[in-house]
Order: sequence, then structure tokens, then C-alpha cells
Amino acid sequence: MASTHTMEIRARYCECDPMGVVHHTVYPIWFEMGRTELLRATGSTYRDMEAQGFLLAVTRLELKFRAPAKYDDLVTLETSLVDVGHVKIEHRYRLSRDGEELVVGETTLACIGRDGKVRALPDAWASTIKGRA
Amino acid sequence: MASTHTMEIRARYCECDPMGVVHHTVYPIWFEMGRTELLRATGSTYRDMEAQGFLLAVTRLELKFRAPAKYDDLVTLETSLVDVGHVKIEHRYRLSRDGEELVVGETTLACIGRDGKVRALPDAWASTIKGRA
Amino acid sequence: MASTHTMEIRARYCECDPMGVVHHTVYPIWFEMGRTELLRATGSTYRDMEAQGFLLAVTRLELKFRAPAKYDDLVTLETSLVDVGHVKIEHRYRLSRDGEELVVGETTLACIGRDGKVRALPDAWASTIKGRA
Amino acid sequence: MASTHTMEIRARYCECDPMGVVHHTVYPIWFEMGRTELLRATGSTYRDMEAQGFLLAVTRLELKFRAPAKYDDLVTLETSLVDVGHVKIEHRYRLSRDGEELVVGETTLACIGRDGKVRALPDAWASTIKGRA
Repeated sequence: MASTHTMEIRARYCECDPMGVVHHTVYPIWFEMGRTELLRATGSTYRDMEAQGFLLAVTRLELKFRAPAKYDDLVTLETSLVDVGHVKIEHRYRLSRDGEELVVGETTLACIGRDGKVRALPDAWASTIKGRA
Repeated sequence: MASTHTMEIRARYCECDPMGVVHHTVYPIWFEMGRTELLRATGSTYRDMEAQGFLLAVTRLELKFRAPAKYDDLVTLETSLVDVGHVKIEHRYRLSRDGEELVVGETTLACIGRDGKVRALPDAWASTIKGRA
Repeated sequence: MASTHTMEIRARYCECDPMGVVHHTVYPIWFEMGRTELLRATGSTYRDMEAQGFLLAVTRLELKFRAPAKYDDLVTLETSLVDVGHVKIEHRYRLSRDGEELVVGETTLACIGRDGKVRALPDAWASTIKGRA
Repeated sequence: MASTHTMEIRARYCECDPMGVVHHTVYPIWFEMGRTELLRATGSTYRDMEAQGFLLAVTRLELKFRAPAKYDDLVTLETSLVDVGHVKIEHRYRLSRDGEELVVGETTLACIGRDGKVRALPDAWASTIKGRA
């Protein structure tokens, strides 16, 4: 359960605010990109999950900001899978620039159906998410 | 065909960029709000249109920027209906601050179905959009 | 220290995702609007604070999502000041729709200067933020 | 004056709307990324331009939407420099997916100073932008 994905992200101009730094609400957007690529690295995609009626809704989000990313920075996002339960999935995130930690975060996702109701994650998807084919 | 709606919008911090002004991609978001409120003023809503399977997709967008809106500015958006055809709807927009024109724009919308294909606008909806109950 | 501000917010179309609900990263944008209006209600503005060289940077953000807001929903945001220290400010947020709690959250802000370094909040600003003229 | 840059962009979940397609206001954000990378390909950066006090503000934006990009699509953006004048720069954009044209657009940028006033583009920057070292 220690699968981790690392990707680089370029800070866009419109993601930065009048302080000249990335607006704090952009980091959870990047975290979502990290989750998407972590799943793709297992050989599957979140698009496929949704097509099969399994949606992942964020139920908890926590961030701590140590230092800001700036416009045009190329930052490194590490996304780690922490736990996969019957319904919930936990991830952890670490964003850095040249080794300096900028932002850390955690999320809990719940599996729901198209009707918005909680839905047990099938074993096959749980295994895929864990990275065991 | 001269129905116009006027609303005030407060520029959000995250809508502003490192130049300290509203990022140019935010104005078409505000235009969409103007269209939404223009339709609501007729007694109907775009949410109802979608629920009935009539979606409006933007097919053309043009903007001219004269002067920027700044953080926390309270600006005035005028949204005017220009034309309602069998499939297409044209709007015009004028954004100002204390009478000074900041941005003008135009859009063309096409009526489509859930399948993304062009769909004729029913007479009832065309009349509603024109503001004739 | 129980000053609270209540405002209504209309969920924009572009704030909603393919699940048809407000994307989870939009709620902290609304929280920022709540803080802005809470300060304005004291007779001052965050724009003035920045003009005087006192910037407020988010250093911690926590959200719990109970139920989603949907497109065109008119939701109610309550923003409460929890604590004002020498450098840090704590807020709490509660978003609801027709009395149903949708999202709750907390933030910590730190006062910094234009150089990004921590800067003590002057007594005058601390009093203003506390709502005591 | 035919310098063109091609890049791939992955459509983010939060960039898609309840229709399940990329919201029309996201395309001009991608165009800005295209301009940024076109300039970087010449060996310089827009970050450097701003640091030297030369800002590029969008004064005109036109888009035509042929077909939507969808969530998780990997699309191709071609950004072309059309003209560099004393103050204004023109670009053209073409977004496609597997060869199918989705969106085309044009922008005019004006060179301004930190004070927001028009400022002539120095010959050195004009040459860099044209891709002639």
C-alpha cells in the first residue's frame, strides 16, 4: 500500500494571484491531477471508473502551506495511496520545488453511484487502485 | 428583441492575476452569469432547460478589453439578447465600472441535445428566451 | 470574538463538474469571499490591508464535505472569526442549503509583508478584524 | 514570422462542466499556456519579460468552437505567432484531438508597463518573440 506517483506541474499565470503566487485553492486541483495519474500508472483510468458507474467524491481535504509556488515554477507533486477501504480511499500529497517542501495535504474519497449514494468499491477496482493487477 | 439584464459583480481575489487585475479568461465566466440571470428574469431558468434536454453550447466568443477590472471592484454587467434563431442565440455584453467601459463581448450559443447534436429550439423556449410569456 | 457574517452565493455553471455538482476546490474560493465580506462588514476592506502592506496568506485549510451543492443552487455561507493572534487569524465556515449542512471548514491565515515574511498584525488592524472600531 | 509551437494538454476534471465537456472559458487558459511555451522555445520566458517591466495584456480574444474536448482527453494545441508590431502581438491557435479540429482562436496582446500604460516593445524583445536570437 505504498504506491506513489511523481509528476511535474508548471504553475500557470491564471493560477497566480495579486501576491504573485499560486492561489491556495489551486493546490487541491493539482492533487486531483496526481490521483488521476497515480491510477493511470496502474493501467486503468478514473474515466473508466466513472463510465462503469463508480464515482469518487472528496469527503475530506486538509492542506498545510509552508511556502508558495510562484508563476512559471516547475514543481514536483508526489501522490501516495495511504488506504483503500470498502468505500473510502485515503491519499497523501507532497508538493516541492527543487527539494523544498511547499505544500502537504491529505484527502479522503468516498465511492458513490450516479445517484450520489455510497457504493461499495468492487474488489476488482480496489485491487486496481492498490496497483495489483 | 431588446431585452437587457443588468447585474453587479464583485471581482474575487482568485480571479485576479499577478498584474493585480482580473484575468481575461474570467470575463466570459461573468458573461455566462449574465445570460443565466437574463433568462431567470423571464421567469424560467437554464437549469430547467437542461432538465428538459435542451443544452446551450457556446460556439463563438469574442471579447475586446478596454481597461481592466481590479480586485474587489464592483462592476456592472449588461447582458443583451440580440437574436434567437431556430438553433442559435446571440448575446452582447458590456462590462463597466462607474460608467467607464471595461470589456465588451459577443457570444453565439447553439441548442444541442444530451447527445451533443444540434437540436431545434422549441417555440415555447424561444418565446421564453425572448421574454414573451 | 464571535463575529459572524452570512451571505448567499449562487453556484455558477463553470464551478460544477461532470458529476453535476460544485467541484470541491470551489468551496475554499467561497470561504475567501466570506472572509472578505466579514471584514467589509467591520467598515474596512482587505484591499486596504494589502495597500498598507499587510497580506494574509492561508497556511492551513481543512474541509469536510457532507453533501454537494448543485448548479444554480442558492447556498448560505456563514463565516465566523475564531481567533486573532499576533500573526495568525482563525476562521470557521459553514455552508448550507435550506438549512441542510453541505460543507464545513476552517482556515488559518498568517500576516505577511510584501516580501513574504511573517509580519506582526498591528493593534489597529487586529481591532478592526475583531470588529471593535 | 511563422514560428509555431505544438504541445499536448490533458483535460482536467475540474475544467469540465455538467455537460461532461471542457468549459468554453478554459480554452483561452490553454492558449495562454501555448504562448508561454512558444516564447520559452525561443530561449526566453514571459517571467523574464515581466521582471524587466514589460507586461503583455490581452486586448482582443476570439474563439470558434467546433467540437468539445472531454474529460481526460489528451489534446494538441498549436500556437502560431502571426505578427509583432511596435506595441501589439498577434497569435493564432488551433486545438485538435487525433487530428479533429476542436477549437480555433486568435488573440491580440498589447505591451504595457507596470502602470498599465502602453509601452513600446524594445527591439531586443521583439526579436526574441520572433524567434531570431
